[in-house]
Amino acid sequence: MLRPSLKVNASVPLLFPLPKLFTHGSTARTILASPTFFKGVSHMPRVVWSAIARYQSLCFPHGFLGGNQQNFMNPSKALTQLSISMDSFDDSAPQIDTDESYELNVGYDSATLHAKTPYGVLRGLETFSQLVSFDYDRAQYLIENVPWSIKDAPRFPHRGLMIDTGRHYLPISVIKDTIDSLVYAKLNVLHWHMVDSQSFPLQIKSWPHLWKGAFSPSQRYLQADVEEVVQYAHLRGVRVMVEFDMPGHAQSWCTGYPEVCPSELCTTPLNVASNKTWELVGDLLQEMTGGRASEPGNPSPGLFKDNFIHLGGDEVNTGCWPKTKSIAKWLRKHNMSAEDAYGYFSKRAAEIAIAMGHRPVQWSEVYDHFQTKLNKKTVVHIWKSNTNVSSVLANGYEVILNVGYWPKSWYLDNLDINWTAVYSNEPCTNVPDSLCGRILGGHGEMWGENVDASDLESTVWPRMAAIAERLWSPREVNSADQATPRMESFRCLLNSRGVRAAPVLNKMARSAPPGPGSCYEQ
Amino acid sequence: MLRPSLKVNASVPLLFPLPKLFTHGSTARTILASPTFFKGVSHMPRVVWSAIARYQSLCFPHGFLGGNQQNFMNPSKALTQLSISMDSFDDSAPQIDTDESYELNVGYDSATLHAKTPYGVLRGLETFSQLVSFDYDRAQYLIENVPWSIKDAPRFPHRGLMIDTGRHYLPISVIKDTIDSLVYAKLNVLHWHMVDSQSFPLQIKSWPHLWKGAFSPSQRYLQADVEEVVQYAHLRGVRVMVEFDMPGHAQSWCTGYPEVCPSELCTTPLNVASNKTWELVGDLLQEMTGGRASEPGNPSPGLFKDNFIHLGGDEVNTGCWPKTKSIAKWLRKHNMSAEDAYGYFSKRAAEIAIAMGHRPVQWSEVYDHFQTKLNKKTVVHIWKSNTNVSSVLANGYEVILNVGYWPKSWYLDNLDINWTAVYSNEPCTNVPDSLCGRILGGHGEMWGENVDASDLESTVWPRMAAIAERLWSPREVNSADQATPRMESFRCLLNSRGVRAAPVLNKMARSAPPGPGSCYEQ
Repeated sequence: MLRPSLKVNASVPLLFPLPKLFTHGSTARTILASPTFFKGVSHMPRVVWSAIARYQSLCFPHGFLGGNQQNFMNPSKALTQLSISMDSFDDSAPQIDTDESYELNVGYDSATLHAKTPYGVLRGLETFSQLVSFDYDRAQYLIENVPWSIKDAPRFPHRGLMIDTGRHYLPISVIKDTIDSLVYAKLNVLHWHMVDSQSFPLQIKSWPHLWKGAFSPSQRYLQADVEEVVQYAHLRGVRVMVEFDMPGHAQSWCTGYPEVCPSELCTTPLNVASNKTWELVGDLLQEMTGGRASEPGNPSPGLFKDNFIHLGGDEVNTGCWPKTKSIAKWLRKHNMSAEDAYGYFSKRAAEIAIAMGHRPVQWSEVYDHFQTKLNKKTVVHIWKSNTNVSSVLANGYEVILNVGYWPKSWYLDNLDINWTAVYSNEPCTNVPDSLCGRILGGHGEMWGENVDASDLESTVWPRMAAIAERLWSPREVNSADQATPRMESFRCLLNSRGVRAAPVLNKMARSAPPGPGSCYEQ
Repeated sequence: MLRPSLKVNASVPLLFPLPKLFTHGSTARTILASPTFFKGVSHMPRVVWSAIARYQSLCFPHGFLGGNQQNFMNPSKALTQLSISMDSFDDSAPQIDTDESYELNVGYDSATLHAKTPYGVLRGLETFSQLVSFDYDRAQYLIENVPWSIKDAPRFPHRGLMIDTGRHYLPISVIKDTIDSLVYAKLNVLHWHMVDSQSFPLQIKSWPHLWKGAFSPSQRYLQADVEEVVQYAHLRGVRVMVEFDMPGHAQSWCTGYPEVCPSELCTTPLNVASNKTWELVGDLLQEMTGGRASEPGNPSPGLFKDNFIHLGGDEVNTGCWPKTKSIAKWLRKHNMSAEDAYGYFSKRAAEIAIAMGHRPVQWSEVYDHFQTKLNKKTVVHIWKSNTNVSSVLANGYEVILNVGYWPKSWYLDNLDINWTAVYSNEPCTNVPDSLCGRILGGHGEMWGENVDASDLESTVWPRMAAIAERLWSPREVNSADQATPRMESFRCLLNSRGVRAAPVLNKMARSAPPGPGSCYEQ
């Protein structure tokens, strides 16, 4: 097995993200496309057989080409099957520790895909689909550079995109399309920043007025619709990690329940002093997580199946608390400063989640407040570039990252950060190797102020692919020059699969192609 | 029946485009969604039953909501069925004279949709789908303002969007999505500007090197793929009118067949003097149209099923002809100026199409050249604002329009033309009523220099909807002020159906939303 070459090398295949280990030969092999090309075992898990149905279309977009193809092909010189096997059939909802490794071998006469789990099979199918090309002149599918031997696994287990439905409502169909696009880059987490100051779109059955904080009656999510999204993601090996940002970024909660906010004029952060607030937070988290029933291995009856739940905690301006009579009184009674109360809020919310068997994820500021006193189950979501990542790790916390100084961050709302800048953002910069392993992974953060259904995909892609490779491929795969042809090719692939990925070479994200031309050169 | 009010009127429903004639009441009726809600007759044509399957999802995006809904609803107070009927079951490929009228009645207890043809049923289903709303609080579908009585038909029979796959390749999946979006606005023509100077993406079996002029080997269309697009459009009542622009805008033809171009250095227009050119044009048109077999009523065995075939003819700079020795000689022999030869080329190409039983569509310049000597079967596609439309009509020609002076034209590549400007472009401006009826309709023209898979939809929509209403609804429906709430609502509907329509109120087309907010207000 070879590590991918670090020099520009035309023989590096156009796979994206690049696999961990691979070798290949130099022979082209035609593929005899047929409805039985993907050969599984009997009683395959649903995650695998539904993936096979999808990859049949993705690998063979021109159909099976009927008898025509067989007439001029010698089947003995063609690949007629990919045999799929796995060690475990467990396809319960994927979690942070789900194994995604796989081995893919494409020989002269046969091809096999083996993985430990159904989710490894998904990743291997994506790689296989990227090996298949189409010879238009002969109307034949083929794989070049056979024999292939690929042994692959992700560098980090948590590789996600954050979408923000607080600033703009995103229709369910758009969220499903987004999940599809993640899978093409082997990303495995949709971080759903559900609510923000501007809107609260989700149905909460125990607090039925909360979604009065939506932009309009029709810009809301039924739990039944979200269940469908979660199931859709599950089948694609994507974890849906929901976020309810608290106590800041929560003015929209006041529309339905003014009593959880300080006052009508001073509406943020959530009222730390009110029992109503804590009733609401408890009921909300119970409904979202299913409570204790949802510990790992025990599928949650809550709306979301992931063991991580994001509780926000960023950018909290506590100004309204001391200004509100009842809260000021409560602060005095408990001998707390407003800053203390912020810590109290974050900790209490996290403890509720932990008591329900879940791991809370909280933004940098929560760690900044508690430092080593923060519960070790908390996952620290580092977004501030002044946080010392090594120190957080050394103190025993696991982290999710999107930091990096401009122009290298993973904030996708910064349109002047192009894919090469995103690509050059190495998560373990200044982090000793011994600690790097505690980084769970990272996110592209697609804050939604200027992003709605019309431009979400073209703002996210192709830059999100650069993040995907940084999180999946070995650290040494870090040359943007070398990645450029693969990135161009991947963008064209995304387009052909219906993803509105913008041109790769544009300086500003989501800008239009500068003139006529090939998608491989723009 | 009432014409829609011309004053701002909150009771005007949020239908887009507005129907010709309608009345409505003021009662809300719940709908008992079920798999048998759409009730057709036995042996329905495929166009209708496939539409019913689609509209079941579009009308009931949250599913049938199981028993829950029935528990708290009184079925006797609910609509349980839409009965669909039609006079003719003929669902052969739609043509310019296909009847799209329909009558939709939604009463207190029953609903009926009747049309002359399957294609009228499609238009009526779209209207019905726009009447259905969803009460999130009660988890119920409903129709407000019952009873409805709608008698609808298009003002113009030809209502299209031009896409340009010569300047950027558009993947098949993107073209299919575009066809879906057209139908939501009751548009019925996809004008496929297939080829231009920059690329020739289509497989031509009789001239197999032509698609060597594609941007790259994979940015090409198999005929099998195009057949699928044509069939996809057919099922949705969309005619696919292909264009091969000639003799100008054709440099990409030279890559595969240099002999049809003047010379290696002077490559345009196509070589009028070469027999090869005429062999190619004849074979190309035969393959595309199926030749004479494709007269109206006789489905074409050619790749495209529409009786119109667009032969371009615009912006021809004949400079290379007199400069090329063999062509100069031919011009002298035939006693022609270069301008004469341009006319000769256009006429000869049109005659080939006519001999194959098809109606050629040609751009303004061809009419400008021939004036009344142009074959009356030619459809004149007027794009130059100095063409006197009334005179073309008075001379007995049918026309397709996209004119209008800046800032009112239907050139969607002009990003500074917003939807209200597009909307204010009345096709019959300065045209006497007696001639207006000879206008077949018009197009939004989406030239592809700065448009690829990433931004096609957000550039086309929502402006294309303004064109759609101008071409469908009565002439009197022309107030942008009144249309604004319907336009906002239609844009949100497009988004919810997965169409990446951009904000309505932006000054520049396809620009991002200016800040957080509701799709109904941006």
